[in-house]
Amino acid sequence: MSPESRGLFITFEGPEGAGKTTQIARLVEQLEGAGVAHILTREPGGTPLGTRIRQVVLLEPDLQVDPLPEFLLYSASRAQLVGQIIRPALARGEVVVCDRYADSSLAYQGAGRGLDAGLLAQITQAATGGLKPDLTFLLDLDPAIGLARAATRGEPDRLERADLAFHQRVRAGFLALAQQEPGRFHVLDGTQEPDDLAGQIWAVVENKLRMGQAEAHASSSG
Amino acid sequence: MSPESRGLFITFEGPEGAGKTTQIARLVEQLEGAGVAHILTREPGGTPLGTRIRQVVLLEPDLQVDPLPEFLLYSASRAQLVGQIIRPALARGEVVVCDRYADSSLAYQGAGRGLDAGLLAQITQAATGGLKPDLTFLLDLDPAIGLARAATRGEPDRLERADLAFHQRVRAGFLALAQQEPGRFHVLDGTQEPDDLAGQIWAVVENKLRMGQAEAHASSSG
Repeated sequence: MSPESRGLFITFEGPEGAGKTTQIARLVEQLEGAGVAHILTREPGGTPLGTRIRQVVLLEPDLQVDPLPEFLLYSASRAQLVGQIIRPALARGEVVVCDRYADSSLAYQGAGRGLDAGLLAQITQAATGGLKPDLTFLLDLDPAIGLARAATRGEPDRLERADLAFHQRVRAGFLALAQQEPGRFHVLDGTQEPDDLAGQIWAVVENKLRMGQAEAHASSSG
Repeated sequence: MSPESRGLFITFEGPEGAGKTTQIARLVEQLEGAGVAHILTREPGGTPLGTRIRQVVLLEPDLQVDPLPEFLLYSASRAQLVGQIIRPALARGEVVVCDRYADSSLAYQGAGRGLDAGLLAQITQAATGGLKPDLTFLLDLDPAIGLARAATRGEPDRLERADLAFHQRVRAGFLALAQQEPGRFHVLDGTQEPDDLAGQIWAVVENKLRMGQAEAHASSSG
């Protein structure tokens, strides 16, 4: 639990084609089945401003966007999403499930594009007001497999168009982030069967929700 | 002259309705008449990416854009403009005339919207790589007069819609910036006749261009 909120903030990270979309849908089904109030959102996007930014930064791959402006655009979308959607939902005590968040910028624009990690951390701190996820599921996958999977889904976006070496740096970047924060990250092998992954993810979330209830009970009776 | 370039970087700042557009056009005419290689650009905009950002951040006033995302969008446009247009032109030895630059963010999002000046300076340093104008003309004007002038030009944009108190903070912000860097800023009374303003501006630019030629001569013969 974030100290500033009563809700639970869960993010999914990983390369294209690792199965994030499927697993997010499965988790949302489980939350619905368990009657847990929740919202589903994504980056870039999640707000009317974010949707415009997504269009510009991701879906127009022929537009020249240098690495720093790319990062600043993601940060603008993130800042709007945190202020307009995520913090209010957490304050209402809801579970927030977000498809990508700041770790994606650190991996893609930092490790992938080579921007300075300290600079990215500084601007991310400002854009999010320091809000970090409580749980992050990293679906890890050999980028060659992920890109082959993603290629079956139509036109590649700006990031899918980058070369394999870029995606290998991104993967290494994600794994390094997970090592730095083992309490927040759960690294899962993206080649597993979807049912197996969904079971592992729900076990972690269910446990965290129970702990949250126990904490709330302890604090209300304490 | 910036140490990193042989060109001359000139920006125009000030409130809406202060006469920037007119004075920029007059300066460009003078540069053309004098046979000085130059480019004219603007913020937000100036690149294909910047034009998209301008559309989102300025021309859709009903879109919810909080102050920090607003600043990050301007910074993204600025970073792309500096890298793609301004630095290359300065490296070719050209005069760059830019309609608004980082001082506008410091005045509008800092003094106007109340964002922390230190944070804005830090992100601006990153977005511009520290590139500052050689000359900045601040056309100063009572915001009540400027807004009345701008109102005759059609639909107000996001900033023109803000209230008078906001525009008074912006004006004070610009004047404070000018006080901090008196060598770079030339503060001009925007209520003067356009011909008078144009004459004062050209006198400053012409002098700076002569100094630049003298420096180049001194260094090539030194």
